[in-house]
Amino acid sequence: MITRRTALGALAAPALFAQARNRVERWGIHEITLEGPREGNPFVEVRLSAVFQQEHRSVEVTGFYDGDGVYRLRFSPDSPGEWRYTTRSNHRDLDARSGAIECVPPTGANHGPVLVRNTYGFGCADGTRYSPFGTTCYAWTHQPEALQEQTLHTLRGAPFNKMRMCVFPKWYEYNRDEPRLYPFVDRTDFTRFDPAFWRNLEARVQQLQALGIEADLILFHPYDHWGYASMGAEADERYLRYVVARLAAYRNVWWSVANEWDLVKGKTRAEWDRYFQILQAADPYGRLCSIHHSRVMYDHARAWVTHASVQGDEFQKTPEWREAWRKPVIFDECKYEGNIPKRWGDISPEEMTHRFWLGTAYGAYVGHGETYLDAKDVLWWSKGGVLHGQSAPRIGFLRKIVEAAPPDLAPLANPYYPAIAKAGQYYLYYLDYHQPALADFDLPAGARFQADVIDPWQMTITPAGVYSGKFKMELPGRPHLAVRFQKAG
Amino acid sequence: MITRRTALGALAAPALFAQARNRVERWGIHEITLEGPREGNPFVEVRLSAVFQQEHRSVEVTGFYDGDGVYRLRFSPDSPGEWRYTTRSNHRDLDARSGAIECVPPTGANHGPVLVRNTYGFGCADGTRYSPFGTTCYAWTHQPEALQEQTLHTLRGAPFNKMRMCVFPKWYEYNRDEPRLYPFVDRTDFTRFDPAFWRNLEARVQQLQALGIEADLILFHPYDHWGYASMGAEADERYLRYVVARLAAYRNVWWSVANEWDLVKGKTRAEWDRYFQILQAADPYGRLCSIHHSRVMYDHARAWVTHASVQGDEFQKTPEWREAWRKPVIFDECKYEGNIPKRWGDISPEEMTHRFWLGTAYGAYVGHGETYLDAKDVLWWSKGGVLHGQSAPRIGFLRKIVEAAPPDLAPLANPYYPAIAKAGQYYLYYLDYHQPALADFDLPAGARFQADVIDPWQMTITPAGVYSGKFKMELPGRPHLAVRFQKAG
Repeated sequence: MITRRTALGALAAPALFAQARNRVERWGIHEITLEGPREGNPFVEVRLSAVFQQEHRSVEVTGFYDGDGVYRLRFSPDSPGEWRYTTRSNHRDLDARSGAIECVPPTGANHGPVLVRNTYGFGCADGTRYSPFGTTCYAWTHQPEALQEQTLHTLRGAPFNKMRMCVFPKWYEYNRDEPRLYPFVDRTDFTRFDPAFWRNLEARVQQLQALGIEADLILFHPYDHWGYASMGAEADERYLRYVVARLAAYRNVWWSVANEWDLVKGKTRAEWDRYFQILQAADPYGRLCSIHHSRVMYDHARAWVTHASVQGDEFQKTPEWREAWRKPVIFDECKYEGNIPKRWGDISPEEMTHRFWLGTAYGAYVGHGETYLDAKDVLWWSKGGVLHGQSAPRIGFLRKIVEAAPPDLAPLANPYYPAIAKAGQYYLYYLDYHQPALADFDLPAGARFQADVIDPWQMTITPAGVYSGKFKMELPGRPHLAVRFQKAG
Repeated sequence: MITRRTALGALAAPALFAQARNRVERWGIHEITLEGPREGNPFVEVRLSAVFQQEHRSVEVTGFYDGDGVYRLRFSPDSPGEWRYTTRSNHRDLDARSGAIECVPPTGANHGPVLVRNTYGFGCADGTRYSPFGTTCYAWTHQPEALQEQTLHTLRGAPFNKMRMCVFPKWYEYNRDEPRLYPFVDRTDFTRFDPAFWRNLEARVQQLQALGIEADLILFHPYDHWGYASMGAEADERYLRYVVARLAAYRNVWWSVANEWDLVKGKTRAEWDRYFQILQAADPYGRLCSIHHSRVMYDHARAWVTHASVQGDEFQKTPEWREAWRKPVIFDECKYEGNIPKRWGDISPEEMTHRFWLGTAYGAYVGHGETYLDAKDVLWWSKGGVLHGQSAPRIGFLRKIVEAAPPDLAPLANPYYPAIAKAGQYYLYYLDYHQPALADFDLPAGARFQADVIDPWQMTITPAGVYSGKFKMELPGRPHLAVRFQKAG
């Protein structure tokens, strides 16, 4: 028996099966459901894949066992028109099933997956602008149902379009609760996945997608007391392939091979390389793929790294790193706004706002997190919930400014003050702790530029005249302002 | 004819000659005046020195020609009792003159010269505390008389106890005036010093001394349009020896071989080494001696460098530099509070205050300067005048705190927040941009410590309880605070 359904951007729940009509949006998901063997350990013993073909192209996707004798294959077509498929399996119930789907144009807010664009930036597959303004809730999908819902509710009103989140549950300060569900049925057996855990994760990824938020899925991390950080090479690979089989088809998925890889004990560099290689081989879509460090950087120049995911506040190194790696640079962790007794979790909202502006002005992307003390230890950075801080609206203000700018702004080489620009068209300077009452600028002489003084904290944009060529401009003489020049029409 | 006078800390003007009684304070100045040849070029042709002897010790000091047939020798005795002297000269009018002086205990605020103490700090020769809290008026002695007087008036009410100032006049932005006096009579002849220039400089050095301010005399600098930065090896040496002969006896003199040595064109590293060597050989007092860079550091480990005079804001490197050089570290320039269109001269008063605290907490000393736009281009950083900024009183507040602390505080190794401490007695943490509402501290368990929360901007010190051992402490949850723990009685 074969059933099919197409997830059209809403929650992929069994209730949707009725919608199946073999039509799927471009970058949506077509899911094939098959019944197969329940005996033994199907996670290990049963192999299933499908080859989807369109004219000369063929794309092989791996299926997965979803428990109760149910097997699924998920395919996200990237080009419109008919795709024909045939399954392959080492079990006859699952092998040589074939069919066809019709890939139709996307609707609504479906702009396709985010890809690297013009070497240093990002963009959606359909050409829509995308600049990451991410936040972090590492363990939000492991919290009680109501808290997960509250997190989604908060995100609906927040300025973030990327979420860093762990697949595995987290054991760390402020995170000493057992998760609601575990990725494996048995705490000591890494061969049997618990479908309930994975269905919840998928549902959350899809809900983020509906909110326009990329899910930056962290595949390994060191904050572990269950053994997930040291399962062994075979289990690691099985896990990665299972994650890919279930989740790669979601167009808003990014892979973060690890958070703080260098703090995970007992794994060699070769193992980290291998994880990338497994993902590269298994993921038919080539989703964005990075790895995040604590103190020791992974070599972001390696071919399988799509963008650098760094920690720290050395934003001024961004131009050098862009040149070295020829990739986008995201400061996914530059400390968190908050007040906990941790120096990584107690920076002021002014400092967080400042870091977003500084990173942006150097040509990087910056990530948010929030760690305010809470009586129930519900800190946004890990469990989600509600935002208590003051930087989020300022990040939203910056996001609007960036999204209104021409695309593919590049940092100026050796600027007097850090700035990103599109030569001859647009210049966005951030003056950091400087407070000149007069400042020198050097713009092209052949054009006129409308100047604005921007206050990132007050969130005001004040027109400040029209300039051209080399000039001195009067400024308010306060620190932490930005100055924008846009070519006048 | 021999006349003698002793400068007792007041202006060394001819009117004081009447006070000469062959008694001189320890670390004061005994000046011997001789008449000698006027013909030819006495600056080049006449050699004059005196050997001062006390029991087994002999100290040779060089004399100098002061114009109009007058020669002077200045001696600053460092130990009480009788000193006998005999002059030496290649001219018979000046040779073999002898006499004796009685060195008596110091009076008033005469604590002797500042010396390096306990490797990383400073102190007065009599044991009095001294921590540099310097400011910068590079060209103040080259300004009109009234402006020089105004600078001294300002300093009287300011918190600074060190002044960075150039011997040579300065030609630079905001400094396009010819000086009131020139170091040489003729603009193209570096063999004839102009005594009027030097008398003014000496008077200013002595006035600073009366205000308790060390004169950090910059001997070479790149901001030149007279040729003083490229006089040639012979003239350089004659100049250095003349400076030493006239000024080394003033106990508040420090030598800064150069400001931004690496921006001076045409001098080799060997020449800079040689300047140090000349000073070492000529200066009988071994005054403090440093060199300041712009981008390329001089090797501060060299034996003739008494302390590192660095530029920048990498305060966190101080512990490493202390270990590497085994010397005090002064951030003599970390940018200036102001609003001019220069990124080195437009930092906010909050940022300047912050830099003083951060540097202090890392075990360094920090220098001030101020560059607010002025209709007449009188910027404190160069010409002196009045202070317009808001950091100076905050620097005074920090100075009081440091001076009330035990001496020889050392930076904590790998502190959670930067701190200087005297183990078991005193801890001063600066929390920078952190705003923990709770913070962890780890003090000795065997003692009780009175805690204070210090607001460096509001200049408040708020008692915050008594603690011991490992504990969590509630804090206001605002950034840029300091926390002090002092052993309770």
